[in-house]
Formats: sequence, C-alpha cells, structure tokens
Amino acid sequence: MRKLINAPADVVSDALRGLAAAHPSLRVDPASGTVVRGDAPRAGKVGLVSGGGSGHEPLHAGFVGHGMLDAACCGEVFTSPVPDQIIAATMAVNGGAGVLLIVKNYTGDVMNFQLAAELAEDEDIEVTSVLVDDDVAVEDSTFTAGRRGTGATLFVEKIAGALAEEGAALDAVAAVAREVNERSRSFGVALSSVTVPAAGTPTFELAEDEMELGIGIHGEPGRERVKIGTATEIVDAALTAIDADMPLSGSEVFVLVNGMGGTPLIEQYVAYAAAAEWLAGHGATVVRPLVGPYVTSLEMAGCMISVCRATPELVRLWDAPVETPGLRWGR
Amino acid sequence: MRKLINAPADVVSDALRGLAAAHPSLRVDPASGTVVRGDAPRAGKVGLVSGGGSGHEPLHAGFVGHGMLDAACCGEVFTSPVPDQIIAATMAVNGGAGVLLIVKNYTGDVMNFQLAAELAEDEDIEVTSVLVDDDVAVEDSTFTAGRRGTGATLFVEKIAGALAEEGAALDAVAAVAREVNERSRSFGVALSSVTVPAAGTPTFELAEDEMELGIGIHGEPGRERVKIGTATEIVDAALTAIDADMPLSGSEVFVLVNGMGGTPLIEQYVAYAAAAEWLAGHGATVVRPLVGPYVTSLEMAGCMISVCRATPELVRLWDAPVETPGLRWGR
Repeated sequence: MRKLINAPADVVSDALRGLAAAHPSLRVDPASGTVVRGDAPRAGKVGLVSGGGSGHEPLHAGFVGHGMLDAACCGEVFTSPVPDQIIAATMAVNGGAGVLLIVKNYTGDVMNFQLAAELAEDEDIEVTSVLVDDDVAVEDSTFTAGRRGTGATLFVEKIAGALAEEGAALDAVAAVAREVNERSRSFGVALSSVTVPAAGTPTFELAEDEMELGIGIHGEPGRERVKIGTATEIVDAALTAIDADMPLSGSEVFVLVNGMGGTPLIEQYVAYAAAAEWLAGHGATVVRPLVGPYVTSLEMAGCMISVCRATPELVRLWDAPVETPGLRWGR
Repeated sequence: MRKLINAPADVVSDALRGLAAAHPSLRVDPASGTVVRGDAPRAGKVGLVSGGGSGHEPLHAGFVGHGMLDAACCGEVFTSPVPDQIIAATMAVNGGAGVLLIVKNYTGDVMNFQLAAELAEDEDIEVTSVLVDDDVAVEDSTFTAGRRGTGATLFVEKIAGALAEEGAALDAVAAVAREVNERSRSFGVALSSVTVPAAGTPTFELAEDEMELGIGIHGEPGRERVKIGTATEIVDAALTAIDADMPLSGSEVFVLVNGMGGTPLIEQYVAYAAAAEWLAGHGATVVRPLVGPYVTSLEMAGCMISVCRATPELVRLWDAPVETPGLRWGR
C-alpha cells in the first residue's frame, strides 16, 4: 500500500492533528473528529454543519471558516460520522439562530444526521437538514437510495455559507442550499481504483487501459467500464450525462472540474479546456470556473465535473469572501 | 497510461488553454507557452519571470498574479523552456525597472535563462538572475550540476514577488530572493514512480513496498531506496537530512509539506502532523505552515518537505497579499 500514513486506524486522527497544527484558527478535536470555527458560536448567526466520511479532503473539514461551514464532522475513511459527533458540532456552533445540517445523500449519513437533528431538538436547538444528491450517474448505489451527493456539496456549502455569514435566517439559508442542490448536477470518471487504508487492497479492479464512467466518490460502481478515452471524450461523456438530466443550453453556469485525488493539476486543466469548449459549443456560459482537487476520493485518478445553473444572486453569494483552508478569496 | 489527456504532444498546450479559460485575468499564450499577468508591464515595477519544465503545477504558471510572478515560461513536460519563451516573457513584463529571472538549478534551465538574459540586455532591459538550489538530497543529479531547485522556489517567488509589488528596486528584490534560497532546504520522498506522457512508461521502477528517499521532482534518483516506512519515519528522514545541512534548532521557520501530485491531501496532513511534532521536538518554531500540492511531479505519490528559516521581514513579505490561481490570500 503506497500511502503516506502511520497505521490505517490512525489516518483520520493523524490528519486532524495536522489540520490543527497547520490552522490554529480552527478548533480541531482529533479524538472526536470535529472541526469548528474558532469564533463559534456566533450569536445570531445560523450555524452550518456538514460532514461525512473522511478521504474527500478538503471536503468537509477544509471548508470550515469564514463564509463557509461553521463545523465539520469527520467520520473514519468513507464511513459516516456518528450522531455524537454531529450533535457535538451542532451544539458548538449554535448561536441561537438555528443550525443547518448539509448532508450528502448516503444512507448512513442521512440516518446519523437525522438522529443528531432529533437530539438537537431535544436540546431546543432549531435544526434544518438539506440533502445534496447531485450525481446523475446512477439511481441508488452501494451506500445510497436515490442519487449520491458529490461535487455540488462545494457549491452548496459555499453559497449557503455566504448567506449565513450575512446574517440571513435559517429558513432562507436552507432555501438557498436546496436551490443550489436542485440547480446542480455532477458526473465522475475513474481512471484508477482506490484503496481504503483499513482494507489494504483496491476497492475494485480496473485494467490498465480501462476507466469507469459514473464512478462514486467511494469507488461505488458507475454506469459502465470502457477503454480509457481522451480527455475530450471523458469530458464529453460527463457533460452529456449532465446535460441529458438538466439541459444547459442558454444557462449561465458555475463549473467545477474536480481532481479525484490522484490526478495532477496539469491534467485537470486539460480537462477544463475540454469542458469550457464543450459548454461554449452547447450554448452555456461559464460565469465562475473552479479547477482543482476539492472533493476527492483518496488517491483515485480521474475527475468529476459539477455544474450549477447560476442566478445573479447565486453569483453574488459565490463571490462573497471565503477564508478556509481549502477555499479562500476576497478578504 | 492512466492519464486525463488528449495526445502526449498536446498536454502542455491543452493545459494552458484550460488555464486561459479558467483565469481570464492572465494573458496565456498556449502556442508559445507563456503566461503573463493581465496588467503587465507595470511602469516602475520590477518584473518577476520564472519557468521551467511543465508537470510541476501549480508551479510556475499558477503563481502568476498579484504579489508573485509577472510571467511564467512553460516548457514541455520536464523540459526546459527555450530562450525565445523566456525573452518574450521578459519583454512582456519589463516596466523599465528591470526583470528578475528566478531559475531552478537544472542545467538546461540555467543555460536557456542565461541565453535569454543576454538577449534581454541586447534589448536594453536590465536583468538579474537568481538560482534556486534548495534540495539537500544529492550533489549533482541527472539534469543538474550542484543541488536541484525544488520546493523552496515557492518561498522565493512568494517573498520576492511581495517585495517587487511594493515597488522595491531590482537589486533589493534579487537580494531577498537569494536570501530566501540561502535560508531554505528541501528533501523529497517518492512512494511511486512517474510517467512522462511522451515516454508512456514509468521513469523508474519502484517495487510495491519500496520508496525512494531524496527523489528529484523529475524522478531523478535520490539517496537510497528502502522499504516504505510510516509517515513519521518518512518525515523524520526528510527533516533529519535538512537539519544536518542547515541546523533548525532555535529557528523560526516556514514549512511546506508538499504533495507530489498523486498523494491525496489527507495524507499530506498526516505528514504535516509528523513534521510539526518533529520540529517542535528539535527546537524549531513553525511560524507559517503550508500544506498542499504546490510543486508537483505529475502523478508521483509522495511528499517533499521544504523549510525556510524566517526573519521578521521575510514573515512580513510572506503575509503580504497574493492573488494567483495557485496561491491566494489577504486581499
């Protein structure tokens, strides 16, 4: 296993110790797997909490900070956080204006965030949950009923985070989060498998000349396995799948060309060139592009493309300052 | 070859088309392989030009922008840029206050930047060159006489870029660039080989359970090949090598824990936790940490650690605003 780790059981807590050391403005508890903004709770501000299995960094812990999340709950690698983590994070960021839970659509996550929401209500904390289910590749999957939540989580966390930072009420923050999810679609392609440290062997086998179209961010099966194509063909497959589900012609869009963790930045820019051309050729206008490894799957090679149909208000919120370890601009 | 590319010959120009599409504030010429700040030349500002072979992204093209480079020259993958590129970039950023060329110490780079500097002087542009040679792993290497230039290039470009942005003269900008290089050391470890697209096969063979200590960023040989160790052992090997060359006890330091391209962020934070502990245990104080894939080697797995002994003035320049595709804060 070619990994830069100590023991498989310590990967998440070791990484959180690193996060704590590198970003002293965050309150990181490696033992409980929670990461909280240093200035939380802020009186009168809606708190944003997200989380999920680890292995997708910078999502979610790297998106805690001004203008984005107030807290993240970090499960073991590819494993849902437990309700205790979620309730601890919820209480840590509750400033009296309620807490929004942003949940990627995986069965374990949905169940554990739901349990935590009920516990929070017992503590008289107003909680609303928003589900992210943007991945058009498959209906139902290894860990999911319905569609999987993937790259659009970044759009949801950034935009809802900006509105919460402005002091909006819980209803409004939840509404914009749902709006972003409804306007977003994603599709991923794997050029390699991925090895969960605790397992020690690849999650699936992929021949040297094969790729998996529609891969999930935990290595869940996609739509089909085919010969590796060119970047242009891979991007065409992803955007064609997205466009079939949510027509893009005539839209202004945010686009994320997202490296899956093992694909270098030079290749992500090759893919972005193809995506920009595809979109221009299909009548869509990119208003805000983003290229980089933001929603990863450990060392998987490949990319995911996420598209969100923008509105002027969503662009305004996208452009608002953000200062987190993983996303930063405007301050 | 599991790569997200079109044709091997088009990787660099395709990636530059992607960079252009994603970052319209830059003037990117995919044909000539140059990337220039949109507001260049700035009258009275020293121009900073760097470059080298591609495959190390975001270095150098991703560091063009406010507070860092004025232009980058992008050679083919792992291949020096040619003098024509360098002179074109130099002329594009010359605002009358002279141009600083930041050159990583590889024989081809040194020769071509030197030729370009002579051509620039024929055009009555004042040019000074600074060599970066921070890698302590080996003296002389596949492409190098002396030490290789690696991770400290980021420190040099950030800090010299900040001073140039303030309007300092060429001599002063060159002096701080040399000072940063002299105060910096790096050491890299590969957990996998790397495949140059045009070659199509791995540059070197590494058994599944082996790592190479002291690797170069083009896959050049390091010091020794050993069994893969834990993150703590790998970081200890790197920092022990650096400390033997430049004692760190009692110093305040910048630290970069740099992913090599194929190692995910969660592992880079595991390594940073080990680095922070090692440094604290050896009497060094980290004043500015940085964790991420900044000076990469295509899809190589592994990490490089770079350390720069700080001064209050270097910290001030490090903290100055920077706004580039690859590094951004403070504005």
